[in-house]
Amino acid sequence: MAFRTDLEDTIVALATPQGVGAIALIRLSGPKAIGLTNQVFHGKDLTQVKSHTVHFGTIRDGERILDEVLVSVFREPRSFTKENITEISCHGSPYLAQQIIKLLIRQGARPARAGEFTQRAFLHGQFDLAQAEAIADIISADSEAAHRAAMQQMRGGFSAEIKRLREKLVHFASMVELELDFGEEDVEFADRDDLRQLVEELQKVIQALIDSFDVGNVIKNGVPTVIAGKPNAGKSTLLNALLQEEKAIVSDIAGTTRDFIEDELILGGVSFRFIDTAGLRETTDTVEAMGVERTQAKMKEASLILYLFDLKAEPLTEILQEVNRLENQGIPFIPIGNKIDQASEEVREALEKRGDFALISAKAGEHLEVLKELVLAKTQLDSFRTGDTLVTNVRHYDSLLRTRDSLGKVLEGLAVSVTGDFLAMDIRQALHYLGEITGEITTDDLLANIFSKFCIGK
Amino acid sequence: MAFRTDLEDTIVALATPQGVGAIALIRLSGPKAIGLTNQVFHGKDLTQVKSHTVHFGTIRDGERILDEVLVSVFREPRSFTKENITEISCHGSPYLAQQIIKLLIRQGARPARAGEFTQRAFLHGQFDLAQAEAIADIISADSEAAHRAAMQQMRGGFSAEIKRLREKLVHFASMVELELDFGEEDVEFADRDDLRQLVEELQKVIQALIDSFDVGNVIKNGVPTVIAGKPNAGKSTLLNALLQEEKAIVSDIAGTTRDFIEDELILGGVSFRFIDTAGLRETTDTVEAMGVERTQAKMKEASLILYLFDLKAEPLTEILQEVNRLENQGIPFIPIGNKIDQASEEVREALEKRGDFALISAKAGEHLEVLKELVLAKTQLDSFRTGDTLVTNVRHYDSLLRTRDSLGKVLEGLAVSVTGDFLAMDIRQALHYLGEITGEITTDDLLANIFSKFCIGK
Repeated sequence: MAFRTDLEDTIVALATPQGVGAIALIRLSGPKAIGLTNQVFHGKDLTQVKSHTVHFGTIRDGERILDEVLVSVFREPRSFTKENITEISCHGSPYLAQQIIKLLIRQGARPARAGEFTQRAFLHGQFDLAQAEAIADIISADSEAAHRAAMQQMRGGFSAEIKRLREKLVHFASMVELELDFGEEDVEFADRDDLRQLVEELQKVIQALIDSFDVGNVIKNGVPTVIAGKPNAGKSTLLNALLQEEKAIVSDIAGTTRDFIEDELILGGVSFRFIDTAGLRETTDTVEAMGVERTQAKMKEASLILYLFDLKAEPLTEILQEVNRLENQGIPFIPIGNKIDQASEEVREALEKRGDFALISAKAGEHLEVLKELVLAKTQLDSFRTGDTLVTNVRHYDSLLRTRDSLGKVLEGLAVSVTGDFLAMDIRQALHYLGEITGEITTDDLLANIFSKFCIGK
Repeated sequence: MAFRTDLEDTIVALATPQGVGAIALIRLSGPKAIGLTNQVFHGKDLTQVKSHTVHFGTIRDGERILDEVLVSVFREPRSFTKENITEISCHGSPYLAQQIIKLLIRQGARPARAGEFTQRAFLHGQFDLAQAEAIADIISADSEAAHRAAMQQMRGGFSAEIKRLREKLVHFASMVELELDFGEEDVEFADRDDLRQLVEELQKVIQALIDSFDVGNVIKNGVPTVIAGKPNAGKSTLLNALLQEEKAIVSDIAGTTRDFIEDELILGGVSFRFIDTAGLRETTDTVEAMGVERTQAKMKEASLILYLFDLKAEPLTEILQEVNRLENQGIPFIPIGNKIDQASEEVREALEKRGDFALISAKAGEHLEVLKELVLAKTQLDSFRTGDTLVTNVRHYDSLLRTRDSLGKVLEGLAVSVTGDFLAMDIRQALHYLGEITGEITTDDLLANIFSKFCIGK
């Protein structure tokens, strides 16, 4: 796809969600945006109005009035795309919006591809690639944490960090490359010790960014949380109580839940993806049913396990054995004593003494607040509030891993005193990967891949 | 509900459809719309900017940046509601829009009720009630015909007609009432012959409007079209072929369609609501199954029946008998010979000679275009293109019926020379009903009833 060659087109798309509403917004961008809109607009001559002004009038298809509208005019470069933009605010009828878009296409506009407005903004230097990607993240963010991370990225926090790293490396790369011009002469413009120190510093920063992906990823996609436990321990009841709505089918018959029901709960601004599982029907040694196997697999993928015990039915010794086993697995978990209202005095006292159990009644919805606090404490995701840069994008994560590897090779080269041309190659490679993140290095394929995931009209 | 008393509130709502998109629009209206928006907006001082201008900035909740936005400012009375309006164009994330709306509510805005923006526009005299109602019709219009009718109403065509009628009557009403002031004296300012002539003229116009509701209603809601015929005649197959998608379950087993499947097809700008029916399993004399009874009922409600015959299985004599019976029912119908590719030479020739049959193969999708043209010709709804006023609103229809009855009483009174006070009463009653249409006569209940059917944000 020749993305850079069709900037002469004027593109059009519905910018607001599909469906019925009070208002729908149709957006045009490109050299002829104002002229094309003016051809179908009856009101002021839009070609003569100032940028950032709004005008009332009608959209007409020949004699037929399609709608009474407001048109906002933005003149390049003072617009989102840095091109001429018009936004037509019409009545929120899908039929009507479609008619107006068809009319504009007949006038010479082209339907916009997914993400094409944002892509044009990027190509015209409105923002870098990481910032463009953050726009999609902002639109899909559904928790405070995800929104904060995306907003920081869109505002350029992450980009600034990457650029700082690149600039330092660029300096050394050019010094090393300068040496090459002197061919056989044995000069070193780039001090090797300084270079090693710089690369080691960069490695630390990059490693920190890589590590932040663990948090960034779960903040963006939700903390995968498994509710596990023996059949009939009350797993579905707990999920429902937490969601305060009936998403899972609850029954007294053990084994009701055959499939994985995913749902989301926002706690303290963080999204938790709760994964209900088929009950652990057999002892953990003799796993048989497929649902149980899958539960085991899910537990290994989880960031957090809520492990439910039926205090009415399960003997204390077995419960404590199971907790021991879980502790040895190394996955963060919260042991939950369910049906506390039906537990024996002895069991209740023993577990209260331990202090690590959440003692609840899922059915009665009792002590759930305590459980929620435990969940938040266990995940320690409050760091999103500190404003530290978080890597949330798997593409960025991937580029950072490659950067780290390239820098590793630079260090290896320095250790064995390789020649300048090899050093320069590895430094350039690291620069390439860093540049991919912010879009200083791009290919049409990369852009197509990124922007095709956007919605049409963005 | 005290609708007129809370115009001092500044109201806020999402104006664009729910869901994910590039852009969401949040609208505020009321005395403090600009001030409240300015409290959370970082950029230019919005209280100082001109009307109809757009401003880039950020929405902040304390230190936290919620989004980068464009804010359009409209100063009263140059706005939709004739109040101060701001429109905040933010990224199209449901989470984000909700956060911004919550923030504005904390600043002092009130969530808007359904239709409250349009209601305020009406209360401030932006347009009359019939025009306000047309806005909802424009939003829900999904065919050219429905859109044209709604647009004509919104642009005031219908209102102008009603106002013309009212003005003529008002003149006579005041003349008759003037007579009452003279008490016992036997004066007649209002010439009784002139009055009779006027009322008769009005009756004609109102009757024409009442009659137009037949067309207006089907244009707004779709022409109810029944596909009928014996089991296995190919009714579901025809519906699917017409819709070019698989909405009905098609099988070779007679009686597959147990329920009514409604779907819509736009032909020549008119919406047809196709109603698939349970097959007419028995002869029409011995109706048994409930589905068949319901089919009979549906056929009576229909504006058009597509009656399908299986040319492969049904004998010609029976087909022609059935057509005779249908002709006697008086409902417009189109006899369709299906499976024409499997019909005998004799049957094909006989039906071709008659000329009133649509001869098709629903399965192969053959000759469907001819059928579509027949459907359009049969309904004769092209009148919507003439620009004649159509009554599409059942509330208006109802008021017109009452107006007609009141005018009937005026004529009866004139025939028996009743006294002026009785005449005046009936004329005032007719004026009242006409005034209800355009909102010159309103009650809070009437307004609440009308605007509560709007969507929030409109």
